[in-house]
Amino acid sequence: MTAATRLSTPALEQALRWARANESAALARFGALLRIPSISNDPAYAADLRHCAEWICRELVAIGLHECRLLPTGGPPVVYGEWLAAGEERPTVLIYAHYDVMPVEPLDQWLSPPFEPTIREGRLYARGAIDDKCGIFITLLALEAMLRSAGNLPINIKVIFEGEEERGSPHIAQFVAAYAALLRADLLVVCDGGGNPGQPLIMTSTRGTVDAEVIVRGPQADLHSGAYGGVVHNPIHLVGKIIAALHDDDGRILISGFYDRVRPPTPSARELIAITEPMLLERARRETGLATFWGEPSASYGERATARPTCDVNGVWGGYQGPGSKTIIPAEAGFKVSLRIVPDQDPREVMEQLVTFVNRFAVATLKLEVRPGAANWPSALLDEGPIIDALQAAYTAIWGRPAQRYRVGGAVPLLGLIQRTLGIPLVDLGFGVGGNVHAPNEYLVLDYFRRGIETAIHFYHGLAQIPRQAR
Amino acid sequence: MTAATRLSTPALEQALRWARANESAALARFGALLRIPSISNDPAYAADLRHCAEWICRELVAIGLHECRLLPTGGPPVVYGEWLAAGEERPTVLIYAHYDVMPVEPLDQWLSPPFEPTIREGRLYARGAIDDKCGIFITLLALEAMLRSAGNLPINIKVIFEGEEERGSPHIAQFVAAYAALLRADLLVVCDGGGNPGQPLIMTSTRGTVDAEVIVRGPQADLHSGAYGGVVHNPIHLVGKIIAALHDDDGRILISGFYDRVRPPTPSARELIAITEPMLLERARRETGLATFWGEPSASYGERATARPTCDVNGVWGGYQGPGSKTIIPAEAGFKVSLRIVPDQDPREVMEQLVTFVNRFAVATLKLEVRPGAANWPSALLDEGPIIDALQAAYTAIWGRPAQRYRVGGAVPLLGLIQRTLGIPLVDLGFGVGGNVHAPNEYLVLDYFRRGIETAIHFYHGLAQIPRQAR
Repeated sequence: MTAATRLSTPALEQALRWARANESAALARFGALLRIPSISNDPAYAADLRHCAEWICRELVAIGLHECRLLPTGGPPVVYGEWLAAGEERPTVLIYAHYDVMPVEPLDQWLSPPFEPTIREGRLYARGAIDDKCGIFITLLALEAMLRSAGNLPINIKVIFEGEEERGSPHIAQFVAAYAALLRADLLVVCDGGGNPGQPLIMTSTRGTVDAEVIVRGPQADLHSGAYGGVVHNPIHLVGKIIAALHDDDGRILISGFYDRVRPPTPSARELIAITEPMLLERARRETGLATFWGEPSASYGERATARPTCDVNGVWGGYQGPGSKTIIPAEAGFKVSLRIVPDQDPREVMEQLVTFVNRFAVATLKLEVRPGAANWPSALLDEGPIIDALQAAYTAIWGRPAQRYRVGGAVPLLGLIQRTLGIPLVDLGFGVGGNVHAPNEYLVLDYFRRGIETAIHFYHGLAQIPRQAR
Repeated sequence: MTAATRLSTPALEQALRWARANESAALARFGALLRIPSISNDPAYAADLRHCAEWICRELVAIGLHECRLLPTGGPPVVYGEWLAAGEERPTVLIYAHYDVMPVEPLDQWLSPPFEPTIREGRLYARGAIDDKCGIFITLLALEAMLRSAGNLPINIKVIFEGEEERGSPHIAQFVAAYAALLRADLLVVCDGGGNPGQPLIMTSTRGTVDAEVIVRGPQADLHSGAYGGVVHNPIHLVGKIIAALHDDDGRILISGFYDRVRPPTPSARELIAITEPMLLERARRETGLATFWGEPSASYGERATARPTCDVNGVWGGYQGPGSKTIIPAEAGFKVSLRIVPDQDPREVMEQLVTFVNRFAVATLKLEVRPGAANWPSALLDEGPIIDALQAAYTAIWGRPAQRYRVGGAVPLLGLIQRTLGIPLVDLGFGVGGNVHAPNEYLVLDYFRRGIETAIHFYHGLAQIPRQAR
């Protein structure tokens, strides 16, 4: 047991007590936030997003943060607030969450309206209840409990709450570059994730993505294959050749240079992966309906799903797709391909490798075009050290057990971007324990609303105890 | 110059004179046939198809054929008529044409209504004017001219006029099998084709087709490729592997055994192909917009387009095809493939080869299904010998030049089928000189209406002159 797990100071106890005493009132205020339909994917909700940002900004002022303001982006503003009075020897933490939510269709599948928060059987139903308004509001309540009970915070904090995460954060790179000085901190805390009831989770890595669309053009119009079979090069045939060449029969990716920077997982990383593998496999069997999985024989399921780079063709099209037959040679065919990349791979380099790979298939009889898409950095979040010790102490104190560390196969583009731009470590502190993310009847398990506030209070107090030289 | 080109008998001259004298009246009766909207692709026209068949049957009776009746099929009836009084030493010829027509959409592009035959600038505009009511009516007028002028025909004839060619003749195989004895003849004359103004054409071969659909199924639903990339086999990847394996880089088909029965063209066939190649290439450049063609380097353009078997993927699909990216592993992907086969290849055998080829790609991680589609015989029509000599004599006498023989890259399923079932030679006698087949403003050049009747009269008289041992 580390020093942090024994953490117990009067200030911490006061803050926890304050939070418990004010939980009902807090829940009512959370309801007001959940009522704002801050859907970022639909321009019709632009005013609601603005209203939501302003509402949060007022709350930040009310609980005692300084410099609260809306920072403009090309889209909805970022809500910014800071409290930097803890002293220079205390760490400065940048806390990230997002206030926008996903669309609510199909509306008729909601048992209660998505923007009328409703409690049923210990669950709070509302769009955004876990993704990610709890990230914003639990952060806010934890800060409030500390500020109201002790009059100060144990650490310096800056918050940034984004308004278009659910549409892929199109303006965040520009935003981070423009405000790099303002965002300077010792640590980024990511409050956009969750755990399972009874089992908290700490995300320790995400994969980056590189994607592109490939278009192959042949004749000026679809042709009759009776008249032109054997003499006109069929675009679908070249599409097939390129897709077939992406992997060998074992699933290893054949793009030249692609694995050059990929390091095998360290023994401790491999151990962690082995621990989470049964959980991943159980979920995989349920979600895929498959009995037999696939991939490089040299890597375990868990490694392939989270720690190895991957390549998938996400869509392919060309020619006649309707019922029966239509014997044509199509004018065009194409496919969309995406690569998941791991730490040490550079998305710009991988994009170049992909484009070079595809262009190797150029022939005189067809036109081949590669359209580069997204190129996002992977991220490595903290998975050990004093900050993780402080986080585990908080989970142990509040949940009765430490969190399970796990790697995420998917991408959270923002994380890699901030890590690259600000050069600071990242740590995952997700409050979303519930279900139906991005689906009808999204809910937060209410018991974990309280636990989230207390875990955050405990963690921020723990961070304050870490000597500067150990950070 | 063969004996046939000098053909000139009093009976032939009388028949030609009769035809010329009665051309105007004939054209009016043709108009009545063109007014019947015998569209076979739309069940709404079932009564019109029946009416059309009855109308033709009455005409056959009126001109003096025997045993005229409607033969039932699962669809519109086949019109049958015979005249077998020429004597046993004269050949019996089975004449084929079809009375159904294609739909007329888009209707607003017709300058005159499709079923109101209209003459403009020497052209007769109407749906079916060339495809293929001229095949029926010119045959009928030629027979009538001979019967009315001489009281008999120089040969024995049977006619079958089909009513659902434009929807792929779904009942014709069953029909031919059921009436094989009734249809027995020495020669099938196919009156469903045409020439170019000033240049008659004789089709000498068609390719057969074998087609199939291949479905590859993976997970029970589309999956997120961030979570399942590297561990779930992507159906699109297997589709790509199969498509890529169909051809080598030179365009040679890699299906095992596929070329075993394919013979190289004879020197005379190659010569014919070389003659028609410039015409094919000119059309190809215009229709495809391509400067560079493709295919087996060992065969000429003309051979690849008409005399070599081919393989094309006509459609491919799987995953996300919309704008932007959606990083999924799809539950399913698939493609449609068709092969064009040449004389001596057996469509049943080729279908087996195709199914075997695809099934070689079966893996434990995906479900692979091949759904066999059509399997149609190729056909070899007469391209030389006394019957072609008689036909060329007719063209030379009436058009002032012999016809150009040519191979058709596409398929006419009926021909191979009749050739296999009845075991008789086929010869092409097409009357459709005009334009816009299957399109708005279909027209027949009127000058060739007259020439068609005269060519048929001349040809049937010529056939009568061929000694039995030379047939």
